[in-house]
Amino acid sequence: MSAPISFEAPRGMRDFYPEDMVWRNRIFDAWRAAAERFGFKNYDACVVESLELLQRKSGEEVSEQIYAFEDKSGRKLALRPEMTPTLARMVAARQSRLPFPIKWYTMAQCFRYERMTRGRKREHYQLNMDIIGSDEILCEAEILGAAVAAMREMGLPDTAWHIHVSSRALLGELLAKSGIPQDQHPAVFIALDKRGKISDEEIASLLRNEGLNDEAIAKTFELLAVTSLEGAAALAGEDSPALADLRKLFAMADEMGYGEILMFDIAVIRGLSYYTGIVFEAFDAQRKFRAIFGGGRYDSLLALVGGQPTPAVGMGFGDVVVGEVLRDLLGETCPIQRDGYLIGYMTDEQRPAALKLTAKLRAEGHKVDLSLVAQKPKHFFGKSGNSSALEAIYIGPDDLTAGAVQVKNLETREQRTLAL
Amino acid sequence: MSAPISFEAPRGMRDFYPEDMVWRNRIFDAWRAAAERFGFKNYDACVVESLELLQRKSGEEVSEQIYAFEDKSGRKLALRPEMTPTLARMVAARQSRLPFPIKWYTMAQCFRYERMTRGRKREHYQLNMDIIGSDEILCEAEILGAAVAAMREMGLPDTAWHIHVSSRALLGELLAKSGIPQDQHPAVFIALDKRGKISDEEIASLLRNEGLNDEAIAKTFELLAVTSLEGAAALAGEDSPALADLRKLFAMADEMGYGEILMFDIAVIRGLSYYTGIVFEAFDAQRKFRAIFGGGRYDSLLALVGGQPTPAVGMGFGDVVVGEVLRDLLGETCPIQRDGYLIGYMTDEQRPAALKLTAKLRAEGHKVDLSLVAQKPKHFFGKSGNSSALEAIYIGPDDLTAGAVQVKNLETREQRTLAL
Repeated sequence: MSAPISFEAPRGMRDFYPEDMVWRNRIFDAWRAAAERFGFKNYDACVVESLELLQRKSGEEVSEQIYAFEDKSGRKLALRPEMTPTLARMVAARQSRLPFPIKWYTMAQCFRYERMTRGRKREHYQLNMDIIGSDEILCEAEILGAAVAAMREMGLPDTAWHIHVSSRALLGELLAKSGIPQDQHPAVFIALDKRGKISDEEIASLLRNEGLNDEAIAKTFELLAVTSLEGAAALAGEDSPALADLRKLFAMADEMGYGEILMFDIAVIRGLSYYTGIVFEAFDAQRKFRAIFGGGRYDSLLALVGGQPTPAVGMGFGDVVVGEVLRDLLGETCPIQRDGYLIGYMTDEQRPAALKLTAKLRAEGHKVDLSLVAQKPKHFFGKSGNSSALEAIYIGPDDLTAGAVQVKNLETREQRTLAL
Repeated sequence: MSAPISFEAPRGMRDFYPEDMVWRNRIFDAWRAAAERFGFKNYDACVVESLELLQRKSGEEVSEQIYAFEDKSGRKLALRPEMTPTLARMVAARQSRLPFPIKWYTMAQCFRYERMTRGRKREHYQLNMDIIGSDEILCEAEILGAAVAAMREMGLPDTAWHIHVSSRALLGELLAKSGIPQDQHPAVFIALDKRGKISDEEIASLLRNEGLNDEAIAKTFELLAVTSLEGAAALAGEDSPALADLRKLFAMADEMGYGEILMFDIAVIRGLSYYTGIVFEAFDAQRKFRAIFGGGRYDSLLALVGGQPTPAVGMGFGDVVVGEVLRDLLGETCPIQRDGYLIGYMTDEQRPAALKLTAKLRAEGHKVDLSLVAQKPKHFFGKSGNSSALEAIYIGPDDLTAGAVQVKNLETREQRTLAL
């Protein structure tokens, strides 16, 4: 025998035992149900992507965190850190024949090589929903509506969280009014996005490095003190197109029944630099956790990877943070949904009858967990406590003679008779 | 602007556009439904695995085909070529507290760095079902029964395919009776598995290299000429334990309603060397395609990765071959399942009413594809032909006045009235 192997998953990677999958499937099922209900079509692509594509699009921070490798032909490949570059590639490849606007979703595994602090993982799954080919604000409203539907489907009450909404375009207008030239805006966005992670002094120093003078820096921080859409309107003016877009989104959210969840928050920036319009991030009401989901309008991405310029809105919704929020709110144990049958038998002589009954129930669409060995009734019912079945059927010699079995409800303990 | 990027997926990797996902989801949904109905519990693990674990278990052929790479700490990682080593690791890690026997399933992406011949891909998805901790032949019967249920769920008739069943243990008994010592059996299995890929002369030469004399080689080929369980019984003797196991499996398959699909086929070997008992492979009836699924009993794998010796049966069922079989049988176009609503509106004035109706229908659980822009009725109904919705609702100014809309069935063209 050779040396023992570690039974642990590689560092930062997750194993999902059946009890973990109950949680994961709760999230995945809610994602799928919401996206389908909102008319998004499912797509997918391999987790292995060309490194060049990922580097072209990503901000520099992500680029350092990419798991890159070469295949045996020297091809430079990587495990994708996010789905959007792949989506842009797939859309660009068929740009002349796709029926725009398209509404697509996927649930994609993504990798980041991060320092392993505070239990952060190096891989996660992410629901991505995107609408490509329309500049209507209804796109933003549909995407946020689908995210709200997913949160409700998971059992999270509307009061437990908020969607913080801002607009890159609005902040751009306001920065321009403060005398900060357009070409400095991307750097300002990146600097402001670090707020909370580094001190305001450090941000000011970053802005100074970008060529902003002290007055412009002071004005930038003043903008961040705006706390309402009305406050923003006072600065931007009522004729601001970005303000009109935000107002439209809030009105639509009301009409679609989730206006209460939305709040204006000028501090939402989104780190990556490709957003162009409305941006949003969802947080638990107590701000105990990182962002649950986030996204926005990115009208210039397709051109960036080489496609035709095309308006687009998208969001990413990871499984890790929402899992933490769910457990924090609902407790560690995911409630069992009892379902189907547990079937046992006393000796091998009753096994053929058990097999036939099992096959019949399964053919009718029922879930049946069939005992793999003959068991005494005490042993069978003793183990039934661990089962997620709704009803238990035990077949003994007398049942075969009688041609009927007792069906025991494991929740209510009631019994009924079933003809064999 | 920099040089254009290729819009293709990396070589051997697959993109799934929505029309491809219809097929993929047909397969995945059938896998999930069948495994759940048979009482298997879902598990999963990251596609990145430690290289050492994969090399420990895999046959030499697979080992050369592994996508291996190092992370930035010099950890040797790989994209798994199969799920079984990961399953063995996860089970070994909790061997003292898992409620054996366990029935687990997963739908896992797996990678092989293969030569790109005849459209073979470098990644695929695989349903894995395993029962660990029981030596009952009912385990084999349950796993095959679940695979049959998945095939039926996909719409494949029972007559379109067969499960070829043999037994490593039986072949071992027969080889021993032919005077071939136990320690040469693994090499004989690997040589015989190459049948059909290389000539019988080349196999004979491989066997000669393993130390078999001409008589033993002739006897080995004689065994492969056995075509029925009765023929095998004549050679093995009625007291053969391996024969008894096979007979038990055929009887259970009859009782479970899939006996007609099973056939004895002594030529089924399974390349990888860790199988110990019954082995099986499914093929389309015309043998046009590669194996649809395969597996068997592997009682020594857990000990191989460092766990306690534990009996186990498992199978792998890839998405590529069954997809080819499905398309061959059912045609290239996956039939549309019409579902839900398509909603449009004439001007932005009707949009709030459309949004409210949409929100109401979605809250009731319906799928609604809402037009992102106001459209003339001609344009709206013209595009409805491409939709998979069952009913179309168009809201014009008169409908708002009337307080009711027409609902048009896109299949039957019938109309009904719905109050707003």
